[in-house]
Amino acid sequence: MIKKYWIEDLAQAEGQKVEVEGWLHRVRKLGKLAFILIKDKTGIVQGVITGKPPFLAEISGEQAVRVTGTVTPSKQQPLGVEIQVEEIEVLGPVLQELPFELNQAEISAGLEHVLDHRVLSLRHPKTASVFKIQSGIIKAFRQFLDKEKFTEIHTPKIVATGTEGGSELFEIKYFDQKAYLAQSPQFYKQMAVGSGLQRVYEVGPVYRAEPHNTSRHLSELISLDLEMGFISGLEDILKLEEEMLRYIFAYLEEYHSQDLALFDATLPEVKTIPRLTIKEIGSILEKEYKKPLEILDLDSESERLISQYVKKEMGSDFLFATHYGKDARPMYTQPSAHDSDVTESFDMIFRGLKMNSGAQRVHEYDVLVNNIKEKGLDPAEFASYLEIFQFGMPPHGGYAIGVERLVIKILNLSNVREAVLFPRDRFRLTP
Amino acid sequence: MIKKYWIEDLAQAEGQKVEVEGWLHRVRKLGKLAFILIKDKTGIVQGVITGKPPFLAEISGEQAVRVTGTVTPSKQQPLGVEIQVEEIEVLGPVLQELPFELNQAEISAGLEHVLDHRVLSLRHPKTASVFKIQSGIIKAFRQFLDKEKFTEIHTPKIVATGTEGGSELFEIKYFDQKAYLAQSPQFYKQMAVGSGLQRVYEVGPVYRAEPHNTSRHLSELISLDLEMGFISGLEDILKLEEEMLRYIFAYLEEYHSQDLALFDATLPEVKTIPRLTIKEIGSILEKEYKKPLEILDLDSESERLISQYVKKEMGSDFLFATHYGKDARPMYTQPSAHDSDVTESFDMIFRGLKMNSGAQRVHEYDVLVNNIKEKGLDPAEFASYLEIFQFGMPPHGGYAIGVERLVIKILNLSNVREAVLFPRDRFRLTP
Repeated sequence: MIKKYWIEDLAQAEGQKVEVEGWLHRVRKLGKLAFILIKDKTGIVQGVITGKPPFLAEISGEQAVRVTGTVTPSKQQPLGVEIQVEEIEVLGPVLQELPFELNQAEISAGLEHVLDHRVLSLRHPKTASVFKIQSGIIKAFRQFLDKEKFTEIHTPKIVATGTEGGSELFEIKYFDQKAYLAQSPQFYKQMAVGSGLQRVYEVGPVYRAEPHNTSRHLSELISLDLEMGFISGLEDILKLEEEMLRYIFAYLEEYHSQDLALFDATLPEVKTIPRLTIKEIGSILEKEYKKPLEILDLDSESERLISQYVKKEMGSDFLFATHYGKDARPMYTQPSAHDSDVTESFDMIFRGLKMNSGAQRVHEYDVLVNNIKEKGLDPAEFASYLEIFQFGMPPHGGYAIGVERLVIKILNLSNVREAVLFPRDRFRLTP
Repeated sequence: MIKKYWIEDLAQAEGQKVEVEGWLHRVRKLGKLAFILIKDKTGIVQGVITGKPPFLAEISGEQAVRVTGTVTPSKQQPLGVEIQVEEIEVLGPVLQELPFELNQAEISAGLEHVLDHRVLSLRHPKTASVFKIQSGIIKAFRQFLDKEKFTEIHTPKIVATGTEGGSELFEIKYFDQKAYLAQSPQFYKQMAVGSGLQRVYEVGPVYRAEPHNTSRHLSELISLDLEMGFISGLEDILKLEEEMLRYIFAYLEEYHSQDLALFDATLPEVKTIPRLTIKEIGSILEKEYKKPLEILDLDSESERLISQYVKKEMGSDFLFATHYGKDARPMYTQPSAHDSDVTESFDMIFRGLKMNSGAQRVHEYDVLVNNIKEKGLDPAEFASYLEIFQFGMPPHGGYAIGVERLVIKILNLSNVREAVLFPRDRFRLTP
């Protein structure tokens, strides 16, 4: 029996007759000689066809094929080998004209057109690499947290109330009741910490009924959420994220350098990430850019400017902006013991764009009930969340990263939809 | 500085002064001596308190605490050590009476009451173990598939149409449109195979608007889905699942034997799993149990009987029931080339309960369009699914496991809700 190979492993099969399965990336017929490129999920290999075998008339780009042939050395080829093709079996024919060319360096089509034909667009190696990198980030995130004794949880996306009041929620008809799609697993991950699982993470969808339709908005996104019990303060969370980022980028360097090369992407170095309070940032913005803050919060312009400043002055692609104002943060955020205006909260800003929010959370029942009231909300609405705070809730904190934002920033893509396999936005529900 | 330890690692710290964080599982005060049990997510350790230190009056069960003391050898203790307690800091007090006892061998309360206080119920080591095992199964599933070069994907849960017509879908108000919660990632995982990702898996929620409220029904469940391209036939999928099950059970054996021991659970041995066609099963049921099949499908009673037969006659806890009738399977199921009544489909039955369905799928565009029409559906409704079938779709197949069913069958639990962190059913929306 002929042995089946992944394309990336073909160099190990020099001199052997092999079988390769994948898609025809390119077909060039030159009289008595033909060159084909075969792609599978691991790479691309050249096949050489000599003579005029009967299958030659049948083959064309993007067919799913099984190719049989002998592996021979070839110095010019990236893999160091090519295949002398003996047989091609077409397993999946192409019945229509392609909506765009897939064998050029880029797909030349607008993003909406690409997304309309999303599945086919993924046959382009560069588009596929976006999702290989995304999958790598998620794998590294889990590996790092598993090592730190976090437990993965799966919490409901069908919920009775929002985490922060009622805005921007998708409503569901749930039998005879009304329910909503979860905006975040915030409450559940805190509850899981209190449940004794102590350190938890979740990788799952979150929902935003955002009426905006910009390059940054999605209705459904993948959130990398974590929550850690028994912290001494915000600094424990910042240290955890620092180590996590170091782990993720090292992982990408090791396993995805080829994917990254398609985008000329340079991975950032994660040294100690500068920590600046919002008040300090306000002084810097005033002094350097004549743009003082009006409130204890950053808009996207301020994020961009302070990020630029930190890069120039401190040589870091990352920044922890800490201690946001009380009004800028949700009711579950721990107030600062030292400064009653601010909270033990932070945002991580990477190359000018906010990647995630996090904080130490309130763990004292009375403080939490009070905070809920101060925000004009009714504690009774939050009864099932509040219960565990009466039964031994330890100090805790965490954060949530939207993986799509991280991907577009690493690859320097301009629209967050490019980092979603099948995006959902204000208007898009298919494919 | 005093070093912090996970409880499971305390034996390494004999003779040292350590810090341990967790919850007080039990507090027994005996005059000048007191014994406490401290639990964290890794285990339970005994602490001994001598004299009457001031903190003694303050402590009680289920408080979140930080305990400082010296680790001393103790032959009677499961860990081989205990802690001579010097200090206890209460980090999270208990403000109310517990709804049930947490330090007995079992929680004595009905399931609904337990689920009403789900978070607290997880402080019981046995309940927590259910979710440690679940998390272990999912980790093993991913590890196995990563090794086999599958890519993890995340597909939308907000969809425009159901995968099998319109029944049992939850409806969402999606801006000005109607949308639904996905019943399965079926279409998307097939599309992802065709996209060139070739082998994919997804771990995510699926939704069933089932009006039933039984011990087996959930509105939201976690599905372990996979799909593999370039298969030669159904047997490739059966082999993959066999190896996957072997991997998962070996993983549980290695990492979760303590969790399993709490349930006296015996892991099954996965040898070659018997394959029986539905027609063969029909003959067996008729001969052995005088219960012939009326149609080419199994009801839950037939599943139970044939599973019992296979255990008795073939010594296997598992069975692949194959080749279900055309009417019993969805339109994307590959018809059999040898027998026009049946399909290249299977169910995996474990200890009498169906764990998952799977099949080779239709990959030929014309056959698929025809099948859709034969089921009385309109191909136009499935346009975004059908597109890739015109552009080089290889033969493929896969299956989906509901992780909750697997967990209850391994642990011999009676209600599927016991295997969901925060279950959603006909009536339950909180916590």
